[in-house]
Amino acid sequence: MSYQTIEYAVEDGILTITLDRPASLNAFTVEMAGELVDAFGEAGRNDDVRAIVVTGAGRAFCAGMDLSIDGNAFGLDGTLRPTLDDMRERLDDPAIASGVRDTGGKVALAIYDCPKPVIAAINGAAVGIGATMTLPMDFRLASTDARIGFVFARIGIVPEACSTWFLPRLVGMQRALEWTYTGDILDAQEAYDGGLLRSVHEPERLLDEAYALAHRISDNRSAVGIAVTRQMMYRNSAQPHPVEAHRVDSLGVFYASLADGREGVQAFREKRDPNFESRVSQDLPPFYPWQE
Amino acid sequence: MSYQTIEYAVEDGILTITLDRPASLNAFTVEMAGELVDAFGEAGRNDDVRAIVVTGAGRAFCAGMDLSIDGNAFGLDGTLRPTLDDMRERLDDPAIASGVRDTGGKVALAIYDCPKPVIAAINGAAVGIGATMTLPMDFRLASTDARIGFVFARIGIVPEACSTWFLPRLVGMQRALEWTYTGDILDAQEAYDGGLLRSVHEPERLLDEAYALAHRISDNRSAVGIAVTRQMMYRNSAQPHPVEAHRVDSLGVFYASLADGREGVQAFREKRDPNFESRVSQDLPPFYPWQE
Amino acid sequence: MSYQTIEYAVEDGILTITLDRPASLNAFTVEMAGELVDAFGEAGRNDDVRAIVVTGAGRAFCAGMDLSIDGNAFGLDGTLRPTLDDMRERLDDPAIASGVRDTGGKVALAIYDCPKPVIAAINGAAVGIGATMTLPMDFRLASTDARIGFVFARIGIVPEACSTWFLPRLVGMQRALEWTYTGDILDAQEAYDGGLLRSVHEPERLLDEAYALAHRISDNRSAVGIAVTRQMMYRNSAQPHPVEAHRVDSLGVFYASLADGREGVQAFREKRDPNFESRVSQDLPPFYPWQE
Repeated sequence: MSYQTIEYAVEDGILTITLDRPASLNAFTVEMAGELVDAFGEAGRNDDVRAIVVTGAGRAFCAGMDLSIDGNAFGLDGTLRPTLDDMRERLDDPAIASGVRDTGGKVALAIYDCPKPVIAAINGAAVGIGATMTLPMDFRLASTDARIGFVFARIGIVPEACSTWFLPRLVGMQRALEWTYTGDILDAQEAYDGGLLRSVHEPERLLDEAYALAHRISDNRSAVGIAVTRQMMYRNSAQPHPVEAHRVDSLGVFYASLADGREGVQAFREKRDPNFESRVSQDLPPFYPWQE
Repeated sequence: MSYQTIEYAVEDGILTITLDRPASLNAFTVEMAGELVDAFGEAGRNDDVRAIVVTGAGRAFCAGMDLSIDGNAFGLDGTLRPTLDDMRERLDDPAIASGVRDTGGKVALAIYDCPKPVIAAINGAAVGIGATMTLPMDFRLASTDARIGFVFARIGIVPEACSTWFLPRLVGMQRALEWTYTGDILDAQEAYDGGLLRSVHEPERLLDEAYALAHRISDNRSAVGIAVTRQMMYRNSAQPHPVEAHRVDSLGVFYASLADGREGVQAFREKRDPNFESRVSQDLPPFYPWQE
Repeated sequence: MSYQTIEYAVEDGILTITLDRPASLNAFTVEMAGELVDAFGEAGRNDDVRAIVVTGAGRAFCAGMDLSIDGNAFGLDGTLRPTLDDMRERLDDPAIASGVRDTGGKVALAIYDCPKPVIAAINGAAVGIGATMTLPMDFRLASTDARIGFVFARIGIVPEACSTWFLPRLVGMQRALEWTYTGDILDAQEAYDGGLLRSVHEPERLLDEAYALAHRISDNRSAVGIAVTRQMMYRNSAQPHPVEAHRVDSLGVFYASLADGREGVQAFREKRDPNFESRVSQDLPPFYPWQE
């Protein structure tokens, strides 16, 4: 894959997506949003990609929306008066899709829908969309140099990229409110103590740790099992009653037991590593993706 | 504003609501409930109020429902047999509104609906409704003298004031269950370790810390942005799928970008503090408040 | 009660359910599932049972599904193609109930529906369904010997027993994803640090601590109040808006105030221990169990 604002490189089953505008601290643009949406879609379809690591080129992860480019922050059509009904009924209508929809949110949804595990390796400043794009990723590892800020209140806007859906699930409501109301820049230790970061590493160790985790969750694991688990975790836990989880788990275990689960039990009995063969491109169970 | 059971004082953009029945440890009464509902409504409409601090007069925060007053705990009409359908279909019918609805819940909903940030400064005992009324507030700061108890099980009733909605969002399910089943009185350190308190301070520092936080979240912040963020955080995170958050954040960013967001970006480019002019009384975006 | 795979013993108001296949490390079977469902139903109806402790005989808590027995993991009818509609519309249809539904999920739902507080005393290995069956229990105490693993990914299947509904409520989303993707075995300290365990004890102290907690949450407590609190906590917090909690709380407090609440307030005024007389078998309020 060839992109202008990101690098896309697969090695040893792991895709590394590198935000790649280092002269601008990898600041986010409309073009980068489109490339990220494309890259996560591509990765979801490519069975050679078993896990994804996202990091930044140079000293930043992503310094936020590039406010030096007019089209990013201005240029809205002030005569539009979009309503929530518009957003519910015609989200993909071009006037809404390109004139109203938050570009960060499009990226967040592409990550959420991607059936591969995703690891953020936050190597430096992650501010605004640079912070919120990491929330739908499964794990956030950071270097001791990382600085993270949900700075929307400071520039007069509100949190975006579905961050109000993800952040309380990760750090609880009180902390989510403080971080978004103040817009303060957190250092790596504060972000770890608050539960946002999974772990903090020396800068030179960060990528190695991210790859080690990527292998731990993809080697000798059922790719289909991981894909289904991810959606089960988010979707089932958001339901009002556990019986809906029971309905989905039952199907999940049923179909898995006819495929990788059969090999898994066999390997367990034979005290050997399993050799799972299911492919996300073709072998997702018939009920996936399900509607709530 | 003049009230009998609370004090209402605005200074430097911060409203202080002081629970003010110190001879009764600020125990909660039906009159206090009505005054609190009125005060949070008033504060929501008053643009001079940019943040709210709630504390108690004397040595307690609020010792709970005043059980020495008959009308508070007894006097129910035992011939009524209200159903959940009654509560869903005619919540404001006088027979339900004054004969069945929990007064603490009316206060909790008034706080939840108030479009200003709210900080609890828990200066001493906060028991029963004294504890649960702090849950819909955004932040709970406490003095080392604070004692907090969800004591409902000890007097044979169940948690009220919407506390079963808020508490697991703040402290997780296991702790929420233990604190409500046992009805134990927690000291400030336990409540902090459990995630309920944002911070613990020496008694003489408590109010200063609360005001400092109030200024951090209101000075040079978009009042409309904060109001919308608060509702986004609660409402979006309770939805089953992040796309609903995407719909709301897109509108939030869109309308903010035509108002305070324009100034925010301008100030950012000019490396100066922003001068946000939006007023909650008039400038909330057209989609606010939205229905799920 | 007499069972083949579990022990059921009531003493001093506390039911102890002991998983009792020590020669197989209490591995889970279809028979054990049926007996657990029956036992939690029975305990719910028996007013002599005020709290429940679940532990394992011998050195393990439960080593997971007994994969050495063919019927547990194999024998599925590979010609079936069950859909989510099937699960929603005919969950109790025999073809679904015994051919598709996850047996662990049936146990989880029986625990969730049981109107008594439930404490897991995890005395050793708790793996697979041995780990997930503890999630709908209110509290998880463990011995320093405990080892806990959500190992589904390692055998090619997905998490079951409604665990994707419960686990993020207990440990947050990031940790829930890591523990299920890796399938790693956690020691007691890791599980405690992650928020899964309420406390960790020396092996010889574990049961005493579990019984002490069982008494703290049942002695001088309203049995009906605890039963209603449990359902309020789970169901109310899963609603999109706190007003639904307000509707339920109001009814809960209303009906409690006509029964144990009356005695509770009287005892409070007289500075004596209350003597609550309500029985779960007969005195649950008329709105219980309610539908969302």
